[in-house]
Amino acid sequence: MKINVLFTPFGADELSFTGKTTVVIDVLRASSTIVAALSNGARDVVPVATVEFAVKVSGGMFGGQILLGGERNTKKIEGFALGNSPLEYTPEVVTGKTIILYTTNGSKAIVKAKFSENLFVCSFLNLTVLAKHLISIDKDFEIMCSGRNNYYSMEDSVCAGKLIAEIQKLKDNVELSDSAKACLSLNKTFGKNTLKMLQESEHGKILLENGFEEDLKYCSRLNSSEIIPYFSANVLKVLHNSKEKK
Amino acid sequence: MKINVLFTPFGADELSFTGKTTVVIDVLRASSTIVAALSNGARDVVPVATVEFAVKVSGGMFGGQILLGGERNTKKIEGFALGNSPLEYTPEVVTGKTIILYTTNGSKAIVKAKFSENLFVCSFLNLTVLAKHLISIDKDFEIMCSGRNNYYSMEDSVCAGKLIAEIQKLKDNVELSDSAKACLSLNKTFGKNTLKMLQESEHGKILLENGFEEDLKYCSRLNSSEIIPYFSANVLKVLHNSKEKK
Repeated sequence: MKINVLFTPFGADELSFTGKTTVVIDVLRASSTIVAALSNGARDVVPVATVEFAVKVSGGMFGGQILLGGERNTKKIEGFALGNSPLEYTPEVVTGKTIILYTTNGSKAIVKAKFSENLFVCSFLNLTVLAKHLISIDKDFEIMCSGRNNYYSMEDSVCAGKLIAEIQKLKDNVELSDSAKACLSLNKTFGKNTLKMLQESEHGKILLENGFEEDLKYCSRLNSSEIIPYFSANVLKVLHNSKEKK
Repeated sequence: MKINVLFTPFGADELSFTGKTTVVIDVLRASSTIVAALSNGARDVVPVATVEFAVKVSGGMFGGQILLGGERNTKKIEGFALGNSPLEYTPEVVTGKTIILYTTNGSKAIVKAKFSENLFVCSFLNLTVLAKHLISIDKDFEIMCSGRNNYYSMEDSVCAGKLIAEIQKLKDNVELSDSAKACLSLNKTFGKNTLKMLQESEHGKILLENGFEEDLKYCSRLNSSEIIPYFSANVLKVLHNSKEKK
């Protein structure tokens, strides 16, 4: 099994994902929010790359079964029901609903990787369950960090490194690219206290300034969920074993 | 002083460098080759982004004062006098000459950063002299790693981390972005033995397969040069103190 990491979605062409297994990470906050929404009973999450498309997709739906969620530069978008805080995605709010999600980094990264044969979403919340699943399907894969505004972000690379470390604990003969080795090393240095790492990261500091302290705590909770978001037919759903492509 | 690192030239727009101080790194091998050429008496080095432009630029020159150098995917380009091995750029070959340099990653990265107010080239060979100079001009700066085919490369990020470590040894109050912190950490983990790190890197392995073992040794020699290549008017020359922009 070979693992490679992309530190940002930049540089990778959409078509380059064709046939690949891809893991998208946006710790702060899209991938944590997606795990929260699906863990709390959302029917599915539709990641979109533009606000315009979010509004268009939601236009055909009625009866309150659909919710627009997301942010632009940490702020909720006018007219959207929800922001990008995982704490908003409670069972009361999301059960049975389809969430159309637009975020500055994460939802765009998922859309970019849409041609992947297998596309999973990873956060600290669902790290070990995903590691085990990746071992069970035993395919080479790429981890795409969403980064922040197309630049590197510490939290995504540390999460990538922790996922790789988890896999290496359970499996031999894992071959790592330069970037995968770098993430493994960064997890060793910065991953011992994930909350502290988030608080000291560039993105974490901006969220703290905007009053999202509780979000950082939520996003740092290792393995608090058993949910694997899986992308198929433009929609993220909870992966059931029956849906696995082996 | 604030330091940021870009892991690849991707994602950064040419114009975003306007007014900035930028350090370009391509350890394997363009930035090492540029340091070698200028250390060995080349008049200047003209980095170009396309082979076509290299040929065009050289067309107007005569009398053997100009040499075309470079590579595409480690191989010398047909019709070029020199490849991209620093070992070819001996005093006998380069003294007094202008080198037109095209390489897969490094020369393109330099051209991308051409609007920088100050643009320096860094390799392991000239790391400390550059660190001291950056401290003396005391400006925020960006380190742009050339990477490999637009992807991350270990050796450039370790070199960036070593440059930052050197600066931190000599100066207080250095503010690091997420990526700069990551490089500092990667240098701690992988930078103790630079030759071993190069040999184990993805790019290093490809060069070894192509018979460039001696190049790796050359490129790993820490502080073997006192030369700082400085970019001005589309040309890299040796920085003299009189030329500094303060």
